[in-house]
Amino acid sequence: MAMSLRASLARVAAQPARVGRRSVVSVQATGVINPSVKKDLDKVVDTIKADEIEGKKGVFCRCWRSAKFPYCDGKHAAHNKETGDNVGPLIIEKP
Amino acid sequence: MAMSLRASLARVAAQPARVGRRSVVSVQATGVINPSVKKDLDKVVDTIKADEIEGKKGVFCRCWRSAKFPYCDGKHAAHNKETGDNVGPLIIEKP
Repeated sequence: MAMSLRASLARVAAQPARVGRRSVVSVQATGVINPSVKKDLDKVVDTIKADEIEGKKGVFCRCWRSAKFPYCDGKHAAHNKETGDNVGPLIIEKP
Repeated sequence: MAMSLRASLARVAAQPARVGRRSVVSVQATGVINPSVKKDLDKVVDTIKADEIEGKKGVFCRCWRSAKFPYCDGKHAAHNKETGDNVGPLIIEKP
């Protein structure tokens, strides 16, 4: 069913890489996004009740590298620096 | 500062790929996560007021492939199938 990671990486490597500059409209990104979060699950879905968020707002990870997943721990900064990516968290403000 | 996408892909290709099976604890994932969302920004951060979410819950994209970003349009399913990944959305339930 799913393409293996090896096949996926081979496909990425075979494609002409586009330089990851801010001015480009899109970049090639065909690999695995989530390196380590709940890899025993077929799909990681988290459900949070807005009124159970601590404090005035919840900051949620979208880079899949946070040690506090599903909450953000700022790890996207290192990912962005290493890869030239531009991902950041989702912030939910409580009523 | 940031590693170029070309360098990043070369580094990925040079590493021994681990097979993307459900039983592995982690997989190599050193490439760009976000292929096309607001690539003119240094960092994509979205702030949503919980009480402005339409309906009883908001379903938010964490695969960076949704045409309705920051909301989910189900595109993670195709990404997971293509790559063997297991990402899914964040669901925020309104009070």
